[in-house]
Amino acid sequence: MPGASDPAEAGSGRTVTACLLIIGNEILSGRTQDKNTAFLGQGLNELGVRLMEVRVIPDVEQVIVDTLNEVRRRFDYVFTTGGIGPTHDDITADCVARAFGLPLIVNPEARRILEAHYPPGQLTEARLRMARTPEGADLIENPVSKAPGFQVENVFVMAGIPAVMQAMFASLKHRLVGGKPLRSRTVMVELGESFVAEGLAAVQDSHPDVEIGSYPFNRDGTFGTRLVLRSTEEHSLESAATALDALILSLGIEGVWEKTEESPEKV
Amino acid sequence: MPGASDPAEAGSGRTVTACLLIIGNEILSGRTQDKNTAFLGQGLNELGVRLMEVRVIPDVEQVIVDTLNEVRRRFDYVFTTGGIGPTHDDITADCVARAFGLPLIVNPEARRILEAHYPPGQLTEARLRMARTPEGADLIENPVSKAPGFQVENVFVMAGIPAVMQAMFASLKHRLVGGKPLRSRTVMVELGESFVAEGLAAVQDSHPDVEIGSYPFNRDGTFGTRLVLRSTEEHSLESAATALDALILSLGIEGVWEKTEESPEKV
Repeated sequence: MPGASDPAEAGSGRTVTACLLIIGNEILSGRTQDKNTAFLGQGLNELGVRLMEVRVIPDVEQVIVDTLNEVRRRFDYVFTTGGIGPTHDDITADCVARAFGLPLIVNPEARRILEAHYPPGQLTEARLRMARTPEGADLIENPVSKAPGFQVENVFVMAGIPAVMQAMFASLKHRLVGGKPLRSRTVMVELGESFVAEGLAAVQDSHPDVEIGSYPFNRDGTFGTRLVLRSTEEHSLESAATALDALILSLGIEGVWEKTEESPEKV
Repeated sequence: MPGASDPAEAGSGRTVTACLLIIGNEILSGRTQDKNTAFLGQGLNELGVRLMEVRVIPDVEQVIVDTLNEVRRRFDYVFTTGGIGPTHDDITADCVARAFGLPLIVNPEARRILEAHYPPGQLTEARLRMARTPEGADLIENPVSKAPGFQVENVFVMAGIPAVMQAMFASLKHRLVGGKPLRSRTVMVELGESFVAEGLAAVQDSHPDVEIGSYPFNRDGTFGTRLVLRSTEEHSLESAATALDALILSLGIEGVWEKTEESPEKV
């Protein structure tokens, strides 16, 4: 696992890494289905940033602070979702301030945004909670419901509601400096994965800079396998795809390749 | 965070904890949407085991080994999903063996299960990979596609495909010893959460053994909030629900309570 360093130094070589912290009892209890992982995994890859770990943790201050302090040192970027609303269980801002040893303040700019949003006299104590950030934080615009997210160093704090999180990600992504995006090619075969396993291992051995994944599925009683090639290097991808085609042909089956223009978004 | 100890000693008092490790590049890249967290969170809670953390990690041997060794000491139970198929990228069994310092063997019982399943001569080298376990592991039956999962101490290794994972969980759950299940009551109000925030904090303060969560939603342009009370103590839940009803009445709005028979499954 590469250690964190200045992402701005990331050139074509090193993998730029990210970790997502999903903060919320409602995900752990199974009440709410997380949808932010898939969105962020894809969105980051387009920028050449690779999501290397996701952690779902409960609304417990010490757990959040300890986890933040561990992952912000291990990954280039850390994103959090959840816990920035107006209620007592929204403690993410408090935890980020504690993790960085910064005072938690009512951010003047965030306060102005909320004052402009609510009718006069309606910016209650509870709503003002949403203007709290660690001192010196940079705000992340929220075009959906106004209450902003914020950034402290390499940590980006976003809302948990997918539509708001996605809008915040659009607002912040120009701040990220990535490496080469991973590209992928995917071929689907109507055969259980054990039939292709041996040949696939050989293709993997001869293409060390391509990650080859095998994902079985069963759709309406038909067993099939989706074979995914992933690499930052287009020529390696091309060569592995050719080898895979030869393997499929040798097995006497047909492979259906997904359109490659989909690739950068779905690795 | 409670440290791991013998779950069999868990009585009514201590919280019995679990961690889920989701192993797979395809979840991190956003290609596959995880569905195992919500199922396991609910299924464990019915048994009085609380899912305290989920980690999604890549198919990288050292990362899997290190993560396993960290979480198996911190939580009473650890569940893994993914990486136990027949292909080269299925390395979970290898990693569990390494984490425990055990030899990886072809498990004789698992071999018999696979021999009985495949037509004579069809148990290829690749398929035999699915019979590999750390020495001394207890198998977890797989009624869907036969290739078993396995247990080593407090670590349960399951398939990633949701239907197979769910069947394996049904096979293993009699081995788990839980505490009291968390119960919940949920009321929905058609009001943004900032309107209830202040009163809700007061209800939380007077009910320290109830966790109160507030989850805003926006459905077809209507803003609403789902307020969730969670506790292992029925009388505390009852008392908090009464206090919440009084709060809702004082705000001049209506609250719609979800049926309580749903509660143990959906906290």
